[in-house]
Formats: sequence, C-alpha cells, structure tokens
Amino acid sequence: MNYLNQRRSILTQALKGRGVDAFLVTTPVNVTYLTGFTGEDSYFASTPKHEILVSDTRCEEQIKEECPDLEAHIRPHTRTTLEAAAEVLTKSGAKSVGVEGNRITLGELEQLKALAPKLTFVPLEGLVETQRMVKDPGEVEKIREAVRVAERGFRMFVATLREADTEKEMVDALEGYVRRAGGRGTAFPPIVAVGERGALPHAPPTSKELGDGSKLLVAWGADVGYKCDLTRTLRSPFDTAPSRRNKQERVGYDFGKLYAVVLAAQNAALAALRPGVKAKDVDAAARAVFANAKFDKYPDLNLASCFTHGLGHGIGLEVHEAPKIRPNSGDVLEAGMVVTIEPGIYIPGWGGIRIEDDVLVTHDGCKLLSTLSREAVTLAV
Amino acid sequence: MNYLNQRRSILTQALKGRGVDAFLVTTPVNVTYLTGFTGEDSYFASTPKHEILVSDTRCEEQIKEECPDLEAHIRPHTRTTLEAAAEVLTKSGAKSVGVEGNRITLGELEQLKALAPKLTFVPLEGLVETQRMVKDPGEVEKIREAVRVAERGFRMFVATLREADTEKEMVDALEGYVRRAGGRGTAFPPIVAVGERGALPHAPPTSKELGDGSKLLVAWGADVGYKCDLTRTLRSPFDTAPSRRNKQERVGYDFGKLYAVVLAAQNAALAALRPGVKAKDVDAAARAVFANAKFDKYPDLNLASCFTHGLGHGIGLEVHEAPKIRPNSGDVLEAGMVVTIEPGIYIPGWGGIRIEDDVLVTHDGCKLLSTLSREAVTLAV
Repeated sequence: MNYLNQRRSILTQALKGRGVDAFLVTTPVNVTYLTGFTGEDSYFASTPKHEILVSDTRCEEQIKEECPDLEAHIRPHTRTTLEAAAEVLTKSGAKSVGVEGNRITLGELEQLKALAPKLTFVPLEGLVETQRMVKDPGEVEKIREAVRVAERGFRMFVATLREADTEKEMVDALEGYVRRAGGRGTAFPPIVAVGERGALPHAPPTSKELGDGSKLLVAWGADVGYKCDLTRTLRSPFDTAPSRRNKQERVGYDFGKLYAVVLAAQNAALAALRPGVKAKDVDAAARAVFANAKFDKYPDLNLASCFTHGLGHGIGLEVHEAPKIRPNSGDVLEAGMVVTIEPGIYIPGWGGIRIEDDVLVTHDGCKLLSTLSREAVTLAV
Repeated sequence: MNYLNQRRSILTQALKGRGVDAFLVTTPVNVTYLTGFTGEDSYFASTPKHEILVSDTRCEEQIKEECPDLEAHIRPHTRTTLEAAAEVLTKSGAKSVGVEGNRITLGELEQLKALAPKLTFVPLEGLVETQRMVKDPGEVEKIREAVRVAERGFRMFVATLREADTEKEMVDALEGYVRRAGGRGTAFPPIVAVGERGALPHAPPTSKELGDGSKLLVAWGADVGYKCDLTRTLRSPFDTAPSRRNKQERVGYDFGKLYAVVLAAQNAALAALRPGVKAKDVDAAARAVFANAKFDKYPDLNLASCFTHGLGHGIGLEVHEAPKIRPNSGDVLEAGMVVTIEPGIYIPGWGGIRIEDDVLVTHDGCKLLSTLSREAVTLAV
C-alpha cells in the first residue's frame, strides 16, 4: 500500500504546472499501477475533492479485497463507466481535466465532452507510462518473481521434451509448466519454433515436430501481475538423422559460430547499459557486433541485415512498455529501469537465433535478473 | 479467401458517401478481419491505388503464409508503422482519409497529421465493428469450432476434478484441457469460483478448494482464431461435510430453486431472440423473470437486484463485441449475429449462479451453438 500512495503522490506532483486540476486515468494497466485494482472496465480519477476509482457492481467485491482504503464510485449496470466518470468529475469541482492523450480514443473524448460540457479536457501524453519506466523496489521484486517462475517453468518444460512433440504441444506444455511454477499464466503467447521456423520472430505454433529441426527457439515469459520476457535458442540433437524432412535447414550456417556472435552482441549491449546512456547507443553497441562479424566460410552473410528488430524494451505491468531500446529511440536510461536485451538474427530457410534476458539498470551499470545459462546448450532429449 | 475479398468489398461500399477516398485500419482485430493476417503491429489501408497491409520485417514471412494475395508494404525497423502508413497514404493519391474514431488515440491522430500534412483525416465510428456484427458463414463455422473445443475441454476438466483442487489449479487444468481439445488457448482467463466466491462475477482464482463449497461456477471459452464464451454453475456434493469451513455458504438459499429461475430467465431471452427485435427487449425478457420470482421461504430476496450486469454481447474475433444486449443498448438484432445469453444472480456471502450460452440469430428465431446440458447438474467427484 505504501508504494501505491507514493505512486499517486508522484503523479500529483507531475500534474502540477500542466494546467489541470484533475486527471482521469482510463487505461486498465495504469489504473492497476495507481490503485492496485486488477479488474477491468474501471477508471481512476484524481480530483480536487478526492482520489476515486470509478467501477461497476461486477467489481465491487474485488475492489473491497484489493483496494480497501480507496474511495470507489460504483455505477449501476444501466450506465457506462464514461457516464459515471463524467458525473464524478463534474461533481468534484474540477474545471480542467487531464486525460491520457496517448491512450484515450477520439470517440471516448467526444463522449466525455458531451457528458460533461462544463469541463475542459486536456490531453497529456504518457504521464503514467513515463512514471512507470523507473520501477520502485516493490515492482523490481515482482519482476524478479516473474523471472523465477518463468525459469522454473522453462526447466520443467525442457526436462519433458520428446522428439515427436509438435510446436503446438510444446507451446501448450510450456503454458502449463509456467502456471505449475506459480504463474497466473504466460506473459504472452509463447513462441516455440523448430528449425527454420525460427526465422519468423513471431512464429505461430504449427504441427512441426521437435525432431524436424536441428534447433529450437523458445520465447516466453511469466505473468505474476508483473511480467518478464525471455528467449533461448537451443541446439537439438536431430541434425544428423538421415530421414529428416527439412534438409534445407540442416545445411548452411554453423549454429555455434552464429550463436557466438549473437551472444557477443548481447554482451556488448550489457557492457554499454548504464544510467545516463542513450537507449539508441545501447542498440548501436549490439548492432556494431553484427556489422563487424565476418566469416571466411560465408563471405556473403551480412548479419547486420539479419537483425531485423529493436534491441529491447521496458517490461513491467506490460510485456512491452517504455523505454524503447532501438535505433530511433529518444529515451535515456535511468537507474531502476528494467529492460529486455534481445539481439537476434533471422535467416529465411535456415532459422533464427535470439538470446533475450531481463536486466535492471543499477546506479553504476546493470544487473541481469534472469539466471538461465546464456551459452549455447544442446537439448538432452 | 473469398470471404476476405467480400469483407473488403463490403467495407468499400460502406465508405461511399462518407467523404473519404481512403481508409486506414489500425486496430489489430479489424486488420485480421479484413486481411486474414493474425500478427500484430500492422495496419491495413484501402486507398484509391491499392489495398495494402503496412507491416514490418518481423512479420514478412507470416504475411506471405497468411495473405499470399495481398500487397504488403514492409517498413524497416528504423521506422514506425505510423510513419510507414503516412507514407503509403500520401503516395496513394488520397486526399481525405478515414480513420477509426472509436479506436485511434488522440496521440496517434496527431502524429498522422504531422507526418502527412497534406491529408485530411476524418474519424469514422465503428465502421468495421458494425460490419463484424453480422457473421458470414465462414465465421459462424469458426465460432462453432470454438464452442466444440471449449465443450470438449470442459468435459475433460470436469472428469478430472478432485475435492482438493484449488481454484488456481482448476483454472490451470481448464486452460490445459481447452488446448488439448484443439484450442490455441482459452478465450479469456477462465473463472473458476468455489462456493460464495461465485458472487464475484469476475472472480480471480484463489487457493480455495473445490471441497470448500457446495457449488462451482465456471466461465470459460476457447480461442481458435474466433472465440466463444460459456458459463456453467454446478452443484458439488460437499455441502453436507461437517468439517467444511464455509458454513455461511452452505446455509441460505436452495441452489435448485434459484437455478431454475436463472434457467427460466435464459429461456425467456431465447424465446424473445429473433431478427428485428431490439436487444434491450431481449434483456428485459430475462430481467422480467427475475422481477417476478417470489419465494415463500425467502420473502426478502429480490432477484432482480442480484442480476447486476447486461444479459449478453456479440462474440467473434473478440470475446466482447457488438451488439450489446443490455438495458441501455440501441442495437437491433439481425440474422447472422452471434451473441451470448448469460443471465446471472450474485448474492454476497452465498455465491452466484450464471448460465451462459452462445446463440446464432437465424431468419426466424435463434439457434443454440452450445450443446452442454443447461439443467442443474451435480458434480460426480
């Protein structure tokens, strides 16, 4: 509860000088951040009169459990949350109300204006998201817990794999083990990609079997309220089976040599990651490793062009949040941020290698929150 | 593919007379509806020059698989999707571009205006959502498949229950069985509520055990691309055990008597459900049954005030979509709509009973897509 009060008081400070005397938070995840309430369809209003959660009868009991100290306005099911919020704001004595410009839709704003014609609405951009970039100790502990759960689930998953498991079966198994390890569920639909399917950074699972490829890319996270986001790419022992269907994927580039470059790129980023550094410079540190990688055996391989996404992003209540670590990012790193560092290369017809870890920015550098080995590992199946 | 072409051509017709010569679809689920592409972070633009998907390199392979016939503009990772969309629209020769007013944020619209200063942007409300209300035969078949998967998963789940299973373990098991039955996953985090926990319509799972209550409320669905949404409330055989902790929940109202009223309310709604009827009148038909329910033994019980949410909603690509079946709805039912009918009563300290089925509006009435028994059933544990 202390952290929740502190978050609301930091928001109140941030609102000063913005020309508003109230603020309406309509984004569920931002409502959760500020109140602890984890349900849906509820708004948080900070007004001259009170701090108040606007919700409905379906959530009444849950609010009593999760936010016993917070005032709540419970609308009947015959009114919308926007109607109830407009009433609360109008009665609060506010004149000028900040809204979340990066989240509220045009349609919602038009409705608010019609429902509360005496109020002026001022779009403010990313106020709560900016605050959420730097985690308080309670949040770092929750992300650590998400990492522990995800890693425990991953170890169970790896221990149970069989050659005949399909990508779909593996995704379902991983979901089950993350829950068995204590998660509410995975943080996003896991990616389990066999062989050349790893070339699709967001591969949906198919009926391709583990034994149909010589490597396995697994991207997953756990949700414990807060989320984590991890990726491992494992060598699997099936590249020598003569009956395998995917000859295309077995030939070509040496897994170990390419893996070493991806790991070197991740290490270069970790070495660059500290407070005060521009996020785009951390991205550039990893990208430089790919640009400089040369292989006598593969003179035409341009790894820089195989790294087709940004290097990382913040994690927390959402699996993708600020800051962005990518070439065009304007963000600067600060102590207390928690980000992914996830260099990857994707080669159509061959596959992909990505290594992704979750990292806390500390006062003098950074600290890995994830603990799984980052070395090239061969599955024992 | 025929359905996809047809959907885009219906959209093109709907755009006529709206004063725009292009339309930008930024909502992922609406992009999926119009293109078949199931990935993220991609926009669909219908312009005077072409119909085109604006996406990025991470999705390039997936687009080739899912939308082989559709033109795609693949942005590099150094540009945002909005930047790429603004460029595509500017080059298309469009002058006035419709945007999704009920979905696009103020911030996104401001960015678009800055990126494409020569274009005029016109917010249009719910154009694709309105089209999505009436399902084409391919969509009805996908919802039927979701129902089949959800019901098969539910039967597996019920068959494996044990007295000592916690709500959390039951939620995890149900997730696993829905996947085992063929689902990508559940359609939303399932609700499994023991005893008086059923009074929370959106109860998060706890460590309460199946044997701690005399009834079990289960709300779940399957996702097979399209979604379904079902609820069953089962009597469990543990109400007589003298050692049970929750004496409060065992005494009070007779499960069978209240269940019969909820079922009668659902039947009244099904009898009222046909094309041309106002959605709010279907809601009223169910609500009247609760208002008229009287029990000699419980003279103070007002069931109408225990039905604290709307009667139902459309389902399809999203688990909640138009139309709304509730007191303040302005929607009118049409053949081809697929909706939930889900009356429920919630009594703090005692629990809740909800019966939810998925229903297709036909030319002369309606047809249940779900097939599980709607009668009061006692768990065989």
